[in-house]
Amino acid sequence: MRIMVLGGDGYLGWPTALHLSARGHDVTVVDNLVRREYDTELGTSSLVPISDVQSRAARWLELSGREIEVVVGELTNFEFLEGSLQASSPEAIVHFGEQRSAPYSMIDRSHAVYTQVNNVVGNLNLLFAIGELDPSIHLVKLGTMGEYGTPNIDIEEGFITIEHKGRSDTLPFPKQPGSFYHLSKVHDSHNIAFACRTWGLRATDLNQGIVYGQATDETVLHPELATRFDYDAVFGTVLNRFIVQAIAGYPLTVYGKGNQTRGMLNIRDTVRCIELALLNPAAPGEYRVFNQFTESFSINQMADMVVAALGSDHEVQHLADPRVELEDHYYNAAHTKLVDLGLEPHLLDGDTIRALAAIVETWRDRIDLSVMVPTIDWRAAASPHGTTDARAAAPTIGLQAVAGR
Amino acid sequence: MRIMVLGGDGYLGWPTALHLSARGHDVTVVDNLVRREYDTELGTSSLVPISDVQSRAARWLELSGREIEVVVGELTNFEFLEGSLQASSPEAIVHFGEQRSAPYSMIDRSHAVYTQVNNVVGNLNLLFAIGELDPSIHLVKLGTMGEYGTPNIDIEEGFITIEHKGRSDTLPFPKQPGSFYHLSKVHDSHNIAFACRTWGLRATDLNQGIVYGQATDETVLHPELATRFDYDAVFGTVLNRFIVQAIAGYPLTVYGKGNQTRGMLNIRDTVRCIELALLNPAAPGEYRVFNQFTESFSINQMADMVVAALGSDHEVQHLADPRVELEDHYYNAAHTKLVDLGLEPHLLDGDTIRALAAIVETWRDRIDLSVMVPTIDWRAAASPHGTTDARAAAPTIGLQAVAGR
Repeated sequence: MRIMVLGGDGYLGWPTALHLSARGHDVTVVDNLVRREYDTELGTSSLVPISDVQSRAARWLELSGREIEVVVGELTNFEFLEGSLQASSPEAIVHFGEQRSAPYSMIDRSHAVYTQVNNVVGNLNLLFAIGELDPSIHLVKLGTMGEYGTPNIDIEEGFITIEHKGRSDTLPFPKQPGSFYHLSKVHDSHNIAFACRTWGLRATDLNQGIVYGQATDETVLHPELATRFDYDAVFGTVLNRFIVQAIAGYPLTVYGKGNQTRGMLNIRDTVRCIELALLNPAAPGEYRVFNQFTESFSINQMADMVVAALGSDHEVQHLADPRVELEDHYYNAAHTKLVDLGLEPHLLDGDTIRALAAIVETWRDRIDLSVMVPTIDWRAAASPHGTTDARAAAPTIGLQAVAGR
Repeated sequence: MRIMVLGGDGYLGWPTALHLSARGHDVTVVDNLVRREYDTELGTSSLVPISDVQSRAARWLELSGREIEVVVGELTNFEFLEGSLQASSPEAIVHFGEQRSAPYSMIDRSHAVYTQVNNVVGNLNLLFAIGELDPSIHLVKLGTMGEYGTPNIDIEEGFITIEHKGRSDTLPFPKQPGSFYHLSKVHDSHNIAFACRTWGLRATDLNQGIVYGQATDETVLHPELATRFDYDAVFGTVLNRFIVQAIAGYPLTVYGKGNQTRGMLNIRDTVRCIELALLNPAAPGEYRVFNQFTESFSINQMADMVVAALGSDHEVQHLADPRVELEDHYYNAAHTKLVDLGLEPHLLDGDTIRALAAIVETWRDRIDLSVMVPTIDWRAAASPHGTTDARAAAPTIGLQAVAGR
């Protein structure tokens, strides 16, 4: 299959590109490389060193004999996107190419606006490009379980059948996203559903849980194939961050009570879920949603598992929650559709945690404790100077392209 | 009360500004005047001649002794918006300042992107400005009944209590918007709800039906106080357009079967609803939704009422529906909250239609039949050159400001 991976230089985009290439697909990576700029802006970097995107692809070609084409450019620049699609005529597009950090979107107004414009316009451009060039292209779009929030009923996969006053309909599941980033994904979901209904596009929206891990079968083949490992308070996901804190002898920082419960999955399952969605495409005109996670844990449970796996001398520290979220809530979310397609989950256990800890141990000299302190306060994002001392404004590359359309 | 009316130069914004001023409130109008540019772009104009915004305000001052301050600028320019709020320190803000035509948003990609960026960023800037300067400001935001689409269950006012697998929660009513414009309003609604939850803002989201009429108690006082009357296929609303077609001896053009049913209201009720929302503000932290319409009709019923009121020689012509929408569907939407606050609806009858027809008769020489032909096809919006011969691209004023933030 000819597949474009948008955002294919990122934490999950790159391992997905490798996995799909290894499985025999022809992969083109499109990326504006802005994730690397966020590091510069925030004064942090991946714990595991990463190569530049061209070197990654060159190394993969050398090791596997398979080419991953790399195209650098902006999804918010329609002419670029259209040209890239025409050049590689993909049968499917995997869309990871969005700003994906909730805290980043909550730094201040300019980061909130940047996140929503970058994500929504990039995705709109993609819908128009597909509609114009080839509506049969299957769009596999990364959403987030955070679109749903924490309702007091079971979360279904995208849609819910509602009985109301003697009538019934199956409708989009109500959304209660918890940051300007999560909101951008809700906006995308509505736009995609509309494009499927109106133009007959076919799309799979993957509402992904929180990913942990850093190694896949392909990334471990050579250091230059490694993907990012973020542990900072802005881009680091919770389990990865806990393990770094444990290795660094720093308390595991739990926000609030720690009863917040979320769907989680191993990075190895992410790449497999994407492949399963691609191999079993949505029908023409169909907008479908899969909840892409394998098990749910509270933050406290994750901290306890890390302590149990790595040694009981690790301290857990509860900080005031910088987010606005329910600290005690019901959580039961369906996630059977990907399993029905053949997903065999890698569940979280002590071995998984110790394997991740070994990676962190290798690079422990690169740990910068200062970047783990949460400085972005949801409640203060609308204050005159935002909530952090981020030295630069949000990247403007994408937005210049929007204005110049 | 000190009230800012964003979009106060538009079809409904201007009569609202007048009405609030007449009722003793101190009104500041903020507008970028872009609605007048859309006319130039589309080669059309208001059937009823309108004065420029400064002349309107000057005439109102002369007639009423009451000042409406006028500020011209872009909501997408945060510095401008913030400065305007600081200067007039409003207690409430009525936000009409968005691109409000579904067909306009469906012309092509650039108009879709313009609509979503203009509306979403303007509204985000407003939320941040309120959060930063004075979270007690009551935001009264214009949404649309079109956010809901046409579900097969009763539509409630913003929220629905769902019983599901033995549990229950009251959640945002699921949204199925039918154009990139309607989608932009859904995006706004989610952003506003989040800001209320996170920053304690107070907001009323008015999901308005389709407005008809042109005259209010204040606009009729002088020709220079008149508001716009749009009858073209892009900005003209259905009943106003039918009456122009009848007066012009042109068939009443019904899209598709004509069983599409929508909530409607008289422009006199719009200005009253806004005032009622202002006089009965949302509580701090509250995001509430009122469905702002007074009665529902199918398109066929409206055509029949126009024929009944104006003479049976008027022909009704069914065109292929340029929109993607259900032509037969259930429709029953709640609309009691504004009535509970004191709204006394002006219901549609033959007298209302004949009064509107008299206005149209006055300006019949200005009718341009060519602008009533629908040229914007929902299904073709993603084609390489869009769906209309609009001579210019979408306005870029707002977007320059976004990029330059």
